[in-house]
Amino acid sequence: MNIKITGSGSYIPTKKVTNSDFAQHDFLNEDGTAFNMTNDIIAEKFVEITGIIERRYAADDMVNSDMAVIASKKAIEKSGIDPETLDYIIFAHNYGDIQINTIQSDTVPSLATRVKYGLQIKNPKCVAYDVLFGCPGWIEAVIQAQAFIKAGMAKKCLVIGSETLSRVVDRHDRDSMIYSDGAGATIIEATDDEGGILAHESATFSFDESKFLYFGNSFSKEEDPNIRYIKMYGRKIYEFALSNVPKAMASCLEKSGIAITDVKKILIHQANEKMDEAIINRFYKLYKMETPEGIMPMSIHKLGNSSVATVPTLYDLIVNGELEGQNLNKGDVIIFASVGAGMNINAIVYKM
Amino acid sequence: MNIKITGSGSYIPTKKVTNSDFAQHDFLNEDGTAFNMTNDIIAEKFVEITGIIERRYAADDMVNSDMAVIASKKAIEKSGIDPETLDYIIFAHNYGDIQINTIQSDTVPSLATRVKYGLQIKNPKCVAYDVLFGCPGWIEAVIQAQAFIKAGMAKKCLVIGSETLSRVVDRHDRDSMIYSDGAGATIIEATDDEGGILAHESATFSFDESKFLYFGNSFSKEEDPNIRYIKMYGRKIYEFALSNVPKAMASCLEKSGIAITDVKKILIHQANEKMDEAIINRFYKLYKMETPEGIMPMSIHKLGNSSVATVPTLYDLIVNGELEGQNLNKGDVIIFASVGAGMNINAIVYKM
Repeated sequence: MNIKITGSGSYIPTKKVTNSDFAQHDFLNEDGTAFNMTNDIIAEKFVEITGIIERRYAADDMVNSDMAVIASKKAIEKSGIDPETLDYIIFAHNYGDIQINTIQSDTVPSLATRVKYGLQIKNPKCVAYDVLFGCPGWIEAVIQAQAFIKAGMAKKCLVIGSETLSRVVDRHDRDSMIYSDGAGATIIEATDDEGGILAHESATFSFDESKFLYFGNSFSKEEDPNIRYIKMYGRKIYEFALSNVPKAMASCLEKSGIAITDVKKILIHQANEKMDEAIINRFYKLYKMETPEGIMPMSIHKLGNSSVATVPTLYDLIVNGELEGQNLNKGDVIIFASVGAGMNINAIVYKM
Repeated sequence: MNIKITGSGSYIPTKKVTNSDFAQHDFLNEDGTAFNMTNDIIAEKFVEITGIIERRYAADDMVNSDMAVIASKKAIEKSGIDPETLDYIIFAHNYGDIQINTIQSDTVPSLATRVKYGLQIKNPKCVAYDVLFGCPGWIEAVIQAQAFIKAGMAKKCLVIGSETLSRVVDRHDRDSMIYSDGAGATIIEATDDEGGILAHESATFSFDESKFLYFGNSFSKEEDPNIRYIKMYGRKIYEFALSNVPKAMASCLEKSGIAITDVKKILIHQANEKMDEAIINRFYKLYKMETPEGIMPMSIHKLGNSSVATVPTLYDLIVNGELEGQNLNKGDVIIFASVGAGMNINAIVYKM
């Protein structure tokens, strides 16, 4: 028995937000002081480092789980399964459903339940729950689906990564330009087909790293101190990721028994283009190799960092031929990898 | 190989809140109209139905994950394991960490990460994540730990149920008297010892039931419509639970191969004493039996409904001999069962 992705779907929100849309934001330093540069220069430096030119925000009348329902319908259709045969719906997110212009996360019932309701699935044996694991949540949820299948507790799982980071951003924080909204969904199935998940790796680094990403006050001292936003120590994350993600990927690859030269693509969580390039370069350096051209498909330029949604959306775009110059074919070996709040790192070596 | 609970711990908050502490609350109907009875009579009827005389609230300077750290330390100590050998920390909750007098749920990093940090565990291979599954979250997290162990992905898991419902209650809603805070933690291990988890059952009913428990506005029309609270349709939940929980428990018992007469105790989620009695009576009726005396240990009178914390706390109190007239001994068969937001139902047949 193998465990494969038999269908995928994604939802890319319609609201396009360009870097110049931040021109009127009053960006501040962490201590509330002003920057010594114009927003134009901030945006220029921002593109140089992150690669992000545009990002997408959910429409005002939508919440996180609405996007997830759309992505899930596509994944189910692609896989051809009867949704009533699903054993699990696993929804990875971090902030629940947040209505526009409000600050509360709505998580009861779980977002997975909302998707199940949206899909109009009746079978009560389809168990719906949510996972919180930072940005690596979708990969972790796939690892959980794999556990249920291996343990004989499931045959078919709908695994979703969906988030509306636009609802938790501080408009006085430059980092707000990174964050984006989106939804990706996949059907994970037990199958006799060759390939599938060959190995996985998962880790939580919390001893020194638990607060690298956190919920904190606005950089503007005039804002309500009881309102908090997504915050990060970008430099620390960069250094942490560079030290630990390549090793985790290499450990995963070793477990899989696949040669580095047989890896066709690396689908990595995208929060910062320069960081991802540095990670991949260091990964190949472990094998004393140059990084192969085109090995790391990028969606960040137009889609920003949509947290848990980034990796499944990227996968969906590639298999549908919607990412220029990128494709995946039967038998190709790919690595999924992610790093994010926790700090959590995970990876999967997967054969198409 | 068997899968057993090798240690448990709980944290019962210090702030005791009696029914008379609600005497000054301006309770309203859902439509904002006043009740035709005094708070004394409301409290009297409330005790008759729910059995709740007191409940506990977390101290003002604590949040959910603080309680969980305390309960987890006790569970680890009881089990005798080295915390660095934990493969997973699974934290079931529904509302994250909410600081006193604020309305935002803080979920980044995950609460499991915060516990791992609080326990000062260094091993990055100890994977920490959160599960949202309504009140049945702790039982579901145990089922997930079981999956990881069966799939060969784990040997030792710390499974926590911890919640501060006091931070999401509407003081104009009589149902607010039900909710309570608390934390329960358990070590779930692969072992050669006899017994352990014999069978489990899990279900999500969302087609008609997804909004039986929800996040809604205050019953007072004067409150900010952007602020929402835990809300429930108690009557619908009662009828739903009565129809479905006994069947789920019976299905679980059948899978386990254990005779009904060999069940020593039923540890059921406690939201309402009358409802629990009705569930247990209907369960025994399926076997044409009278409900045995003392089969269902109750903690609700003094502890209220602490959501995911109720069942593990109840277990911990009994094994420590802290619940009058109740005990559990090696070889005893018990049923864990829960019902809550989703609507989710689950059960485990377990041999001590």
